[in-house]
Amino acid sequence: MLKLYIGNKNYSSWSMRPWVLLRQAGIDFEEVQLRFDSFSGDSDFKRRLGGIAPAGKVPVLTDGNFAVWDTLAIAEYLAEKFPDRQLWPQGVKARARARSICAEMHSGFGALRGACGMNIEARLPEVGAIVWRDNAGVRADVGRLVAMWQELLAEHGGPMLFGDFGIADAYFTPVMMRFRTYALPAPAAVTAWMDRVCALPGVRAWIDAALAEHDFIDFEEPYRLTR
Amino acid sequence: MLKLYIGNKNYSSWSMRPWVLLRQAGIDFEEVQLRFDSFSGDSDFKRRLGGIAPAGKVPVLTDGNFAVWDTLAIAEYLAEKFPDRQLWPQGVKARARARSICAEMHSGFGALRGACGMNIEARLPEVGAIVWRDNAGVRADVGRLVAMWQELLAEHGGPMLFGDFGIADAYFTPVMMRFRTYALPAPAAVTAWMDRVCALPGVRAWIDAALAEHDFIDFEEPYRLTR
Repeated sequence: MLKLYIGNKNYSSWSMRPWVLLRQAGIDFEEVQLRFDSFSGDSDFKRRLGGIAPAGKVPVLTDGNFAVWDTLAIAEYLAEKFPDRQLWPQGVKARARARSICAEMHSGFGALRGACGMNIEARLPEVGAIVWRDNAGVRADVGRLVAMWQELLAEHGGPMLFGDFGIADAYFTPVMMRFRTYALPAPAAVTAWMDRVCALPGVRAWIDAALAEHDFIDFEEPYRLTR
Repeated sequence: MLKLYIGNKNYSSWSMRPWVLLRQAGIDFEEVQLRFDSFSGDSDFKRRLGGIAPAGKVPVLTDGNFAVWDTLAIAEYLAEKFPDRQLWPQGVKARARARSICAEMHSGFGALRGACGMNIEARLPEVGAIVWRDNAGVRADVGRLVAMWQELLAEHGGPMLFGDFGIADAYFTPVMMRFRTYALPAPAAVTAWMDRVCALPGVRAWIDAALAEHDFIDFEEPYRLTR
């Protein structure tokens, strides 16, 4: 049985990716949630995760007693284990392109991630407007993301980035959450794709659970004092 | 014909990974070097790269007129295109483990990367000693790296992380450069593995070219005024 260890659904962008991928692909798995705490060495989070994955971060996927960690490695493991689900595009070039943009996301977009942390339940359009006005790095990140998405949606004709839903769409779901929370600008074709993705049952299930969570963690809340 | 677009060999840690992988695996490719400049929108670097890969960063691999970017996507593309080179380990679990640590590297170890930028020609043991004394994040990153490497070397018995040289070893070559430049501490078994990797002809060729480069780029040199 596959188990996916995740953090808070409202905050943990890395956890969201493999969870919505598994759920939307119809792959059976058990969720183990480790809610964020102090992350100190003896905290409950670190203690429970320590014996499972040495990197000490969520998400972690276990398959029996074998652990795979980090979202990209989890995605590749699932794509190999469930080839019939076609989690990557089938064509060599489309697959390489999907991996390129996922890897680009994996190591990049630091300005956007730093200034606009994922916070699904929060509505912070004024914060977003100030960030947009003042932070050239965020504008550059958004510009690059929008250009990437527009090109792929035009090239493959939708409804998802490479036709059908897959790792690439799942990989950008936390970014969509940021666009919503901070009301970041996107062209209509991109917004329509985001709406389609967010309406998928596997993605909707994560969002609904995040909205029901009601935790408030100070270090994830640079823009709010309370819920 | 494969072309690999890279930055400065002395500084560009991301470029080093696929280059040493290609060279050491004996895969024929043409190198196109774009030396670092201001990275402004109209700089030579951005202008030459702009038409090739929209992410605007090196490394980029082109196969004919098709571009793959970001080191992990390049590694996966090469592993698929040249299955006989066994760039990933052959076993499902070993391959998943290799992908886990490469993905962990791809998005992590920010403290080490921030404080100890790759600078192959520089010898900065005193800087390294001060960083080691003052920067708990760097100590944590080094501790995690060393533990990961020790475990894999013990489990697979060397000479490389998963037996034979592959993507995982290539992925950590820039980190080895940092251990050398900043004289960071490592146990004997780890140092011996680093020495074996650095003695491989494909890795040696990069190091030699970096040493012959003789550029001095201020934003890559927080610890030196001149060469």
